[in-house]
Amino acid sequence: MHELLAAGTFLSPLVIEGAVRRALDEDLGRAGDITTAATIPAGAKARAKLVARKPGTIAGLACAARTFELLDESISFRARKRDSDKVEAGALLAEIDGPAAPILSGERVALNFLGHLSGIATLTAGYVAKIGNAKARVCCTRKTTPGLRALEKYAVRCGGGVNHRYGLDDAVLIKDNHIAVAGGVRQALEKARAAVGHLVKVEIEVDSLAQLKEVLASGKADVVLLDNMDTTMLAEAVRLADGKLKTEASGGVTLETVAAIAATGVDLISAGALTHSAPSLDVALDIEL
Amino acid sequence: MHELLAAGTFLSPLVIEGAVRRALDEDLGRAGDITTAATIPAGAKARAKLVARKPGTIAGLACAARTFELLDESISFRARKRDSDKVEAGALLAEIDGPAAPILSGERVALNFLGHLSGIATLTAGYVAKIGNAKARVCCTRKTTPGLRALEKYAVRCGGGVNHRYGLDDAVLIKDNHIAVAGGVRQALEKARAAVGHLVKVEIEVDSLAQLKEVLASGKADVVLLDNMDTTMLAEAVRLADGKLKTEASGGVTLETVAAIAATGVDLISAGALTHSAPSLDVALDIEL
Amino acid sequence: MHELLAAGTFLSPLVIEGAVRRALDEDLGRAGDITTAATIPAGAKARAKLVARKPGTIAGLACAARTFELLDESISFRARKRDSDKVEAGALLAEIDGPAAPILSGERVALNFLGHLSGIATLTAGYVAKIGNAKARVCCTRKTTPGLRALEKYAVRCGGGVNHRYGLDDAVLIKDNHIAVAGGVRQALEKARAAVGHLVKVEIEVDSLAQLKEVLASGKADVVLLDNMDTTMLAEAVRLADGKLKTEASGGVTLETVAAIAATGVDLISAGALTHSAPSLDVALDIEL
Amino acid sequence: MHELLAAGTFLSPLVIEGAVRRALDEDLGRAGDITTAATIPAGAKARAKLVARKPGTIAGLACAARTFELLDESISFRARKRDSDKVEAGALLAEIDGPAAPILSGERVALNFLGHLSGIATLTAGYVAKIGNAKARVCCTRKTTPGLRALEKYAVRCGGGVNHRYGLDDAVLIKDNHIAVAGGVRQALEKARAAVGHLVKVEIEVDSLAQLKEVLASGKADVVLLDNMDTTMLAEAVRLADGKLKTEASGGVTLETVAAIAATGVDLISAGALTHSAPSLDVALDIEL
Amino acid sequence: MHELLAAGTFLSPLVIEGAVRRALDEDLGRAGDITTAATIPAGAKARAKLVARKPGTIAGLACAARTFELLDESISFRARKRDSDKVEAGALLAEIDGPAAPILSGERVALNFLGHLSGIATLTAGYVAKIGNAKARVCCTRKTTPGLRALEKYAVRCGGGVNHRYGLDDAVLIKDNHIAVAGGVRQALEKARAAVGHLVKVEIEVDSLAQLKEVLASGKADVVLLDNMDTTMLAEAVRLADGKLKTEASGGVTLETVAAIAATGVDLISAGALTHSAPSLDVALDIEL
Amino acid sequence: MHELLAAGTFLSPLVIEGAVRRALDEDLGRAGDITTAATIPAGAKARAKLVARKPGTIAGLACAARTFELLDESISFRARKRDSDKVEAGALLAEIDGPAAPILSGERVALNFLGHLSGIATLTAGYVAKIGNAKARVCCTRKTTPGLRALEKYAVRCGGGVNHRYGLDDAVLIKDNHIAVAGGVRQALEKARAAVGHLVKVEIEVDSLAQLKEVLASGKADVVLLDNMDTTMLAEAVRLADGKLKTEASGGVTLETVAAIAATGVDLISAGALTHSAPSLDVALDIEL
Repeated sequence: MHELLAAGTFLSPLVIEGAVRRALDEDLGRAGDITTAATIPAGAKARAKLVARKPGTIAGLACAARTFELLDESISFRARKRDSDKVEAGALLAEIDGPAAPILSGERVALNFLGHLSGIATLTAGYVAKIGNAKARVCCTRKTTPGLRALEKYAVRCGGGVNHRYGLDDAVLIKDNHIAVAGGVRQALEKARAAVGHLVKVEIEVDSLAQLKEVLASGKADVVLLDNMDTTMLAEAVRLADGKLKTEASGGVTLETVAAIAATGVDLISAGALTHSAPSLDVALDIEL
Repeated sequence: MHELLAAGTFLSPLVIEGAVRRALDEDLGRAGDITTAATIPAGAKARAKLVARKPGTIAGLACAARTFELLDESISFRARKRDSDKVEAGALLAEIDGPAAPILSGERVALNFLGHLSGIATLTAGYVAKIGNAKARVCCTRKTTPGLRALEKYAVRCGGGVNHRYGLDDAVLIKDNHIAVAGGVRQALEKARAAVGHLVKVEIEVDSLAQLKEVLASGKADVVLLDNMDTTMLAEAVRLADGKLKTEASGGVTLETVAAIAATGVDLISAGALTHSAPSLDVALDIEL
Repeated sequence: MHELLAAGTFLSPLVIEGAVRRALDEDLGRAGDITTAATIPAGAKARAKLVARKPGTIAGLACAARTFELLDESISFRARKRDSDKVEAGALLAEIDGPAAPILSGERVALNFLGHLSGIATLTAGYVAKIGNAKARVCCTRKTTPGLRALEKYAVRCGGGVNHRYGLDDAVLIKDNHIAVAGGVRQALEKARAAVGHLVKVEIEVDSLAQLKEVLASGKADVVLLDNMDTTMLAEAVRLADGKLKTEASGGVTLETVAAIAATGVDLISAGALTHSAPSLDVALDIEL
Repeated sequence: MHELLAAGTFLSPLVIEGAVRRALDEDLGRAGDITTAATIPAGAKARAKLVARKPGTIAGLACAARTFELLDESISFRARKRDSDKVEAGALLAEIDGPAAPILSGERVALNFLGHLSGIATLTAGYVAKIGNAKARVCCTRKTTPGLRALEKYAVRCGGGVNHRYGLDDAVLIKDNHIAVAGGVRQALEKARAAVGHLVKVEIEVDSLAQLKEVLASGKADVVLLDNMDTTMLAEAVRLADGKLKTEASGGVTLETVAAIAATGVDLISAGALTHSAPSLDVALDIEL
Repeated sequence: MHELLAAGTFLSPLVIEGAVRRALDEDLGRAGDITTAATIPAGAKARAKLVARKPGTIAGLACAARTFELLDESISFRARKRDSDKVEAGALLAEIDGPAAPILSGERVALNFLGHLSGIATLTAGYVAKIGNAKARVCCTRKTTPGLRALEKYAVRCGGGVNHRYGLDDAVLIKDNHIAVAGGVRQALEKARAAVGHLVKVEIEVDSLAQLKEVLASGKADVVLLDNMDTTMLAEAVRLADGKLKTEASGGVTLETVAAIAATGVDLISAGALTHSAPSLDVALDIEL
Repeated sequence: MHELLAAGTFLSPLVIEGAVRRALDEDLGRAGDITTAATIPAGAKARAKLVARKPGTIAGLACAARTFELLDESISFRARKRDSDKVEAGALLAEIDGPAAPILSGERVALNFLGHLSGIATLTAGYVAKIGNAKARVCCTRKTTPGLRALEKYAVRCGGGVNHRYGLDDAVLIKDNHIAVAGGVRQALEKARAAVGHLVKVEIEVDSLAQLKEVLASGKADVVLLDNMDTTMLAEAVRLADGKLKTEASGGVTLETVAAIAATGVDLISAGALTHSAPSLDVALDIEL
């Protein structure tokens, strides 16, 4: 399964299996594929091709492979592309051979994974392409589809993006409410630093240059999230930060604005849209029976 | 919980609970909300408002309510809108009171449900509005996000759409491959009818008027899916069908084309985009501590 | 696994696996098979025969096969019959070879599935046989054993019956209480039709011919459930329905009464007893060590 | 919940909850109760009575109560009987008040538990009644419905029976195959005794008096299972055993034969039919809206 | 998998799989092994040796094997020892070959199982060795690590100990509180005997010789737990019991005191420390890439 | 529940519930608490005190509270201490009132959590105390008990320690094998930095000062793990690091050696023993019925 994943990435086989089982359960329901059972004789064989109907960046081949494997171990799934590959419309992604019935029954679940995850990878690759040679990295958020976070974060990496924290537990991100209750920027940063281990990074959200200066003065943050600033202010923030901490631009970033934001010199540009609003990539299964 | 659902709909409390638990588990991870634990004192209270930042149709309030309830039973969640309500930007959706820490910890999960499901409801409502007084109903497909089918189908209903089958098991949909293996339209329909119970409807996909005539001649189908036909052919198909079976137009339907398709007189217009490509609705949680 | 299922049927491999895992967990408990561990040496091999002790209709071979596979992948399970086969007492159902210990440990779970499901298939086949050449189909209900609905509905098909709805969600069945609250037969039917999609059938329960006439007048029902009517009234109901909707006779149907009911011309005869009161079929595992 | 259980018994609340959740999931499916959603207005209230339609022994009230509680916490469930109570036809088992919709939606699941478990309790009570004043206790086996063992064993206790082992792990039961491989009765008993802890009892199956003598000579067994012996041989076996170990008669015990078997003086009479072939008890829910 | 288990023991493959999946899930988390993904090329192969760093008694090889198998089916795991084997420091336990990445990713989970379970087996073997030729058996308790009881009880057997009851359900153990509420030793024993089946043993805790005499007089107990008695009193208790019931010494047993306690003639010596306080055995994975 | 947790910490209520359910399931088994069912009348009430028998640092009160709540919602659990409190022998931890039966049934599970987690907290606090005023923090590892990592890491914080990474996914830790395959220290660090997001820290293990110099030269690591160095080498390593990265001493740290290691000036001292070899703290439940 590992050879289907994008190079340098990881996805737990247990995470893939769990997601695929849930998807199969909700599609097969109680009575299963009643159309195929009624019309396809038991011995019928099929050959199928997974094909991209539109150009894009692929993610989710391991989920597709696991879908067919869970339905029938005798199905052969031979990938012709690998996650993170950029493909043209019409590109052959995989060839599938085996009993016709389980191939037909698994088609929609496999395509739903591939379409959803490739959609995210493709949108991410679009942002990355806009940035061109600027140093900024495109970054996701925690605005993910419920139940699919690990897979969606992986799809962002397939598209050339990097991952923000995976959850509330693997990095500190101090927001305005935390600052308010803690009694100020410095106090919030000190409390956070004192509470977490040596392998946890601390990021803090600021919405003004004054706040940024407080953060810099404290010397306690690894990353600063520059919230909803225009490019002029972002550029000034980058100048102030001066490499002492990473700068992340966030808030309403679009394909139209990302290049200009990248030009300000920020290190990271994060966009919830990568995971919560990416349209599905059109992928199809062409079957010869 | 039922009073948060759209009138005339149902969502199993167990389905809601299962989805919310999975989402909380993936966001809280192993160490939980380390930022809030470090910066918010145990006794701090908060009042929060769920607010729509953009106009749209709401779906998912029960998921949001359950999110906070699972984190802390003492949180009060008072809905000010109900699923399926159309709202303006700035509309107050719910008021939340209780301990500050679990409100902050649950914010993102609650918003991810509301944004995703309201996005689907809003897009569906957009299609419905385009159709105006035509009799056609807007309909979803099985092209849903893995793991969220029941919730997404519910969101389509909140937006004024109707549901296609929920899975492979609750209705027959005979496609080209089934027809090919079964030996023709009539044979496939007869096999399907013989195999399924009296409460299962049978739909068949056709891509030509000749096939439609075969379907009509057999008298065995309840619904015909008219695949990727232009509006001229759709109108002719409707004329041929003449009310003897339901007609469903499908294939590349967009907000731009849906009105013209409806004008052909079809009964149903189905679009995978409703569930696989709806952008999230922007919903926020404004917290006063 | 599919080749063990009755022709033209489907059972999700995930449903089978889930049921078998639960059954193994409750039988093996925490310490496992302490008798076999104490008395059977590790290397011992066994050959076993699954044999029907009584005549009947077989269902559940895939569950039996999966039981042994989950205990030890090296066990060979070769079916000699297929689900839905009618067998005589003494018939060989399957041959099993492999390590003795897991064969002994899996025996009871495999037999419990086979006995229970074959019992349902056998009772169903008994009803079907009584009907003879009448057109009526024997049909199950939602009166199933908690946790086993998909398997039991499958067993009914193995016995030659057809399935009623699988749950509250895949068809409408309007009963007296729904009619009362909705304000009458016509109102209830109209509300139901308006609420559900084009692939959902609508059935309504009536207990008088007057109600049946209301249903017919509305033209909104696909099926009518004729509740607890005697055969005279059933025959009159069939005459009134006149093929405009399917007729289902229900209520206290027994092996003694089913032929007379079928003779009234109803389309379906449903009986809860098929799934809630079928005695187990006696199946045994004869082991040679 | 404990006050609904039979006196002197226990059922884990987690076991009840798990079984009820599975049953609700399979009945509500993905779309939930579409009939009730369409026809019952949100605010409608209902009062319902759980009533036995036939005389019998009740088991499963805690499952019924939990069904409604999981659907809506505001439903009030007031038991009027307790598990193990013997009731006449028409007896009121419980009164239920609350929102009409979830009461209608939970009706079938609650009745399926009550009918199935009361069926087992009633059949057990029938066997117990036949025995009269003889000392023999009626006992279940491991021939239970997959997934419901703990509940079915509890139902046997409700009917006045006692429980055999719950699984392969809580007692030793040496059968003919174990004896054969171990090298004889004495060897098998010695191996078993040496392997298990001081809180595990050892039973051995014999099919002849010669074997029984071997068992007695070894002094290693707590219980002997007398397999398929006629009453003459059973009486002789009891005489031989002479109180030195418990005697269990097993094999084809029926309501007709149980009294004669009890008269032989055996300590226990076990019957798989109690759990694998008990017909459901007819229980209904009468609803006033 | 069975061939990795200690002779004469059993561990459900489903119990092993469940525990290993949970452990892998908590170690791999959402993003998986990011270090290995970043530094180890996809095609890299590895050979690894599982080695004991300290002398001890091995338990858990099947868990280790399953860890690697769940990560990648192509990994070969060849055991060189078997559970319950006593090994010297440096002993080779198993050889592992396959793709480098999953071997590195599974290392810690495999070692955590082996270290924890071998720690328990080693401590148990230490107690057993102290007892020497005395007849007493070393016995565990229910003081186990939450979630690991079946595995820990198995490890005790690997170390030469025997198992006390596995839970509250497989044997009766009457303690002081039960006696007090039941109205005395005799009453509690009678109630227990009357309530449980013929395959359940009854043990009762006493803390004085007077209580022991009551137990003996009742003739209803199989085992008596002698709680926190000194060796003089224990010896007197054994004399009184005179083989009529099994005697179990319990309370603060240590490696220093166990031999003296065994010398009193008790049948069993139980110690919670075996499972709740055994230090981990140092086991390592030496990898050649 | 939050008020039982140590100040400034978090534990997901879903993590607690999952662990407690698993523990209750394995203790109650199928038949439940048969001793209590037999001897304790339904209406009996009890008052109980959770008491520390030995001095220590408390962790796990929320698990204990949840145990009783899952068995019976009417049980009142009033904590008298809070996690992370240091207590003397005899200290009252909580008072519990309610029905006697579920209090008796939950006793062992509650104590197993409290004993295990307080054992870890107490051992951690012992290490922390040895360090005194040195700046080093005591730190756990991934050598945790399978299935309990989140709870054990929390217990380490209760004892005054800090947490190392929670899994393979939330920080990079490059070990010798990674270095070897990657082609050297610099290459491994560069690959890791390039692969992970901006919120992930990078640690690398070195076993010589030469390697440390390579790490420092690269400027790519946040933390260096100084593996199995003696205090002289550790002190030299700290001098070389000169605050440019955090230093972590690891390998065979004991209560005897930890003070000397802290005196070298390292930032962190990690010890697997904290979680894999901490003896349970003796906690008891004194019940008055």
